[in-house]
Amino acid sequence: MNSTSFSDFAINIANDHAQVVPVTLFVAVLCLCVVIGHLLEENRWVNESITALIIGSLTGTIILVISKGKSSHILRFDEELFFIYLLPPIIFNAGFQVKKKQFFHNFLTIMLFGVIGVFISSSIIAASTFYGVYFYYFNVAVGLGTRWLFPRFGFRGLTAREYLAIGTIFSSTDTVCTLQVLHQDETPLLYSIVFGEGVVNDATSVVLFNAVQKLDVNRIDGWAAVHVLLDFLYLFSTSTVLGVSAGLLTAFVLKGLYFGRHSTVREIALMVLVAYLSYMLAELFHLSGILTVFFCGILMSHYAWHNVTESSRITTRHVFAVMSFIAETFIFLYVGMDALDIEKWKMSKLSVGTALGICSTVILLISLGRAAFVFPLSAVSNCVNRNAAGSSPITFKHQIIIWWAGLMRGAVSIALAFKQFTYSGVTLDPVNATMITTTIIVVLFSTIVFGILTKPLVSYLLPHHTNNSNINREPCVSKENLKLPLLSFEESAATNILRAKDSLSMLIESPVYTIHYYWRRFDDAYMRPIFGGARSNGCA
Amino acid sequence: MNSTSFSDFAINIANDHAQVVPVTLFVAVLCLCVVIGHLLEENRWVNESITALIIGSLTGTIILVISKGKSSHILRFDEELFFIYLLPPIIFNAGFQVKKKQFFHNFLTIMLFGVIGVFISSSIIAASTFYGVYFYYFNVAVGLGTRWLFPRFGFRGLTAREYLAIGTIFSSTDTVCTLQVLHQDETPLLYSIVFGEGVVNDATSVVLFNAVQKLDVNRIDGWAAVHVLLDFLYLFSTSTVLGVSAGLLTAFVLKGLYFGRHSTVREIALMVLVAYLSYMLAELFHLSGILTVFFCGILMSHYAWHNVTESSRITTRHVFAVMSFIAETFIFLYVGMDALDIEKWKMSKLSVGTALGICSTVILLISLGRAAFVFPLSAVSNCVNRNAAGSSPITFKHQIIIWWAGLMRGAVSIALAFKQFTYSGVTLDPVNATMITTTIIVVLFSTIVFGILTKPLVSYLLPHHTNNSNINREPCVSKENLKLPLLSFEESAATNILRAKDSLSMLIESPVYTIHYYWRRFDDAYMRPIFGGARSNGCA
Repeated sequence: MNSTSFSDFAINIANDHAQVVPVTLFVAVLCLCVVIGHLLEENRWVNESITALIIGSLTGTIILVISKGKSSHILRFDEELFFIYLLPPIIFNAGFQVKKKQFFHNFLTIMLFGVIGVFISSSIIAASTFYGVYFYYFNVAVGLGTRWLFPRFGFRGLTAREYLAIGTIFSSTDTVCTLQVLHQDETPLLYSIVFGEGVVNDATSVVLFNAVQKLDVNRIDGWAAVHVLLDFLYLFSTSTVLGVSAGLLTAFVLKGLYFGRHSTVREIALMVLVAYLSYMLAELFHLSGILTVFFCGILMSHYAWHNVTESSRITTRHVFAVMSFIAETFIFLYVGMDALDIEKWKMSKLSVGTALGICSTVILLISLGRAAFVFPLSAVSNCVNRNAAGSSPITFKHQIIIWWAGLMRGAVSIALAFKQFTYSGVTLDPVNATMITTTIIVVLFSTIVFGILTKPLVSYLLPHHTNNSNINREPCVSKENLKLPLLSFEESAATNILRAKDSLSMLIESPVYTIHYYWRRFDDAYMRPIFGGARSNGCA
Repeated sequence: MNSTSFSDFAINIANDHAQVVPVTLFVAVLCLCVVIGHLLEENRWVNESITALIIGSLTGTIILVISKGKSSHILRFDEELFFIYLLPPIIFNAGFQVKKKQFFHNFLTIMLFGVIGVFISSSIIAASTFYGVYFYYFNVAVGLGTRWLFPRFGFRGLTAREYLAIGTIFSSTDTVCTLQVLHQDETPLLYSIVFGEGVVNDATSVVLFNAVQKLDVNRIDGWAAVHVLLDFLYLFSTSTVLGVSAGLLTAFVLKGLYFGRHSTVREIALMVLVAYLSYMLAELFHLSGILTVFFCGILMSHYAWHNVTESSRITTRHVFAVMSFIAETFIFLYVGMDALDIEKWKMSKLSVGTALGICSTVILLISLGRAAFVFPLSAVSNCVNRNAAGSSPITFKHQIIIWWAGLMRGAVSIALAFKQFTYSGVTLDPVNATMITTTIIVVLFSTIVFGILTKPLVSYLLPHHTNNSNINREPCVSKENLKLPLLSFEESAATNILRAKDSLSMLIESPVYTIHYYWRRFDDAYMRPIFGGARSNGCA
């Protein structure tokens, strides 16, 4: 080897350090977050996410001072890193740890909030910003110079597609803060709705964002809306099928081959790898990886998890939680660090006043857009469920909490904004830079300010958690209460037809519970014998 | 946003897939490896690593056919990926799962093989290849044209530094195959030596490789050797201290703050993060990350592991094993896939005969270099340990197994070869390409051929595992057997001096056991109260 290759080697070493330094620093700060998060656990105001955001900002400040104002972040935000490595564990863990019974009982309500809600909220935000342009020119023309909406603050220069994208970007919520305050056992209905909406909302906004990218913006009419809707339904169903198949396949393989016989390591590795594979396959086929991996998580915890050894069960339950925890902390840390991204601030050429104006407009639109669907859809949900046995309505106080829980914006907003307005995290366009900084400020502000207010708000609205009406709600609806006809697979056809009639009227009266009941029977009779699962105890 | 940013976005999507496709394929093949590895578990000939290598080669062939001979691998080998992400979990797990008692009982022997052995083996390989050049010219001059060593086959054009690097590259062993065959409970001494040598050998060869890079090759003399040795000792001690500190710090924090009170997730996250941080810090300060993370693993399993909740204990034990398993399979898969790297084969401009010649020379040198230290050092070890209580000598059959266990070459060899002879996995020089392909073939050949022969060889040499003399060796030397004076910290100074004299003579007679005994007393009296740890039962 000659001197050239030696200099190459030297460059190599330097490159080594280009990766080693940021990774080391990030891991060190993550450790700090874990310890400080633990120490602040019992604090009334802050939580894990806020801690990570603040530590991130402080680290950013320190780096800014050390690098003499050149840079504030140690890793460039990479939406690939986010979508390929950080998001899957978070969503998978959500599916794996979700209380399936609660989730499916409230499935209709969750879908109303998570899907229809995002459509309403996106439309409101997109339309307000878009028509705001005309308001502005109108106002300028008539000499009012009013501060109506975006263009006043520099929101010109965006295409129709970008207005739609902004709608979806600011419709993805982050319910982590609220979930840390609510208690699954005390308010199961509320918890399940907030949790379920959070996951479905993430999936919907990403799918909608991608649908908007494919839209022909020159011809936006009724058909375009139908097109987006059909696209959405197609993505939703195929992604779900893929996730369910992956989960069932794992369960089948684990049960059939009895992995625990040789090593627990392989069972755990297989579960982790197949879960990740389902996400990647969905991304490869342009489906929604979030939905896929979420349903894969649900199926795995329902079937596959019961086919592994005891120690694998403990390990998987914890390891998925740890991966999700680290990924989440990592994201908040990064967002905090990126808030001080001097380059983008300079690029956006904004005054402090203008920036504040834009951000407060966005936050106002977010609260309005959310209010516009939470209260009406709650009424719809209460109306549909009024006949269902064992179902309690969503009270007004709960509606306020649901509305509040979705005001915070998180990492998905940031990632989508980076995807829309930068190329690999870099932008040279002032308008794009403005959108990025706006998104970051909105995320920071909503997470920190709204996040800090969440605990006091919840304890004000639900003063005595244990006295809450929902605590009395029986989470396990017994067979007697349901009073459903038993559809026996062994009895005569005539009886079955009679019973089927009863079932049909039952289905119309309380659809969710009836579907549930038959699902459970089907599960016990056909699914569990093939794919494994917990012993049925009438309340599984 | 204008049309430029839109095309940027399109490029972005394409880039997305540039990462999604290989990752998906790799994860899918990993799943396949897990399932096939499980099915072949009871097979007499193959093991996990061989399975992964063969599946990797098959995948490579398929990709080669699909891409019409253009490429055989889906991910370019990246020694950063290897050293920053894949190696740390493997080595940490080795430290975490090692039977510390056995390891430290045989510490001296392990160090002899792992450190002195690598020095001897590297020198022999480097010297043979280097002086082979002179032999060649001599032979050419006298018209013999003999096939003596490398230059005959194209080993000209290497610098002295590169010969030394080749020595270290081919001195790093991979004992995975043998360890899968040996049983820790049946032959504890043998297992502990093979296992310990494997880890120490990895660390030594990497440290030695880095020391060689810093060497002034124009003045290689006695002082250079001393310099390398001092450098090595400095790296060894500082890395160990860093790893020990990281382990103790984690134990102290976990004990002091009692993390389990709030969440098990944080304890697990902290252990994983600090372990990784210790590796990265070592790399940052140009120390040996391998040694650091190995000792961090030992300390964590000795102290920190006992300070966490029961479920965290189960989880960590399994999760580290899973991470190590996935990383190992990943590496073997990659090596198998890279064997068919057409680019490098074309680059090296070698005929099949020449390539075979070089590889067989290297394999011959590896076996000679290993024989040159295993048998003499075994004699030294037996000589030193002959007076020690409860210690059995290394029999000749065991020596053969130890020699055999170290004939296989693995991922560390590949990674070092890539580091030495390529720039980010790419080389345009025929000599460098030759070295890379040679390393890959040697790794493939030794792992598959020697690997397949390992099981039969071990069952031939140790026909009835359970009748083995070592099974009778008491793994827990009781206090009575040791007959060591008890150094009480409360008794009078006079008694202590008397006892110290006894201890000194004891120390000379059976040093290892004496050190052990006092270490255990110190551990019980001072370390465990501060850092936590298992209840002492006289046999801990």
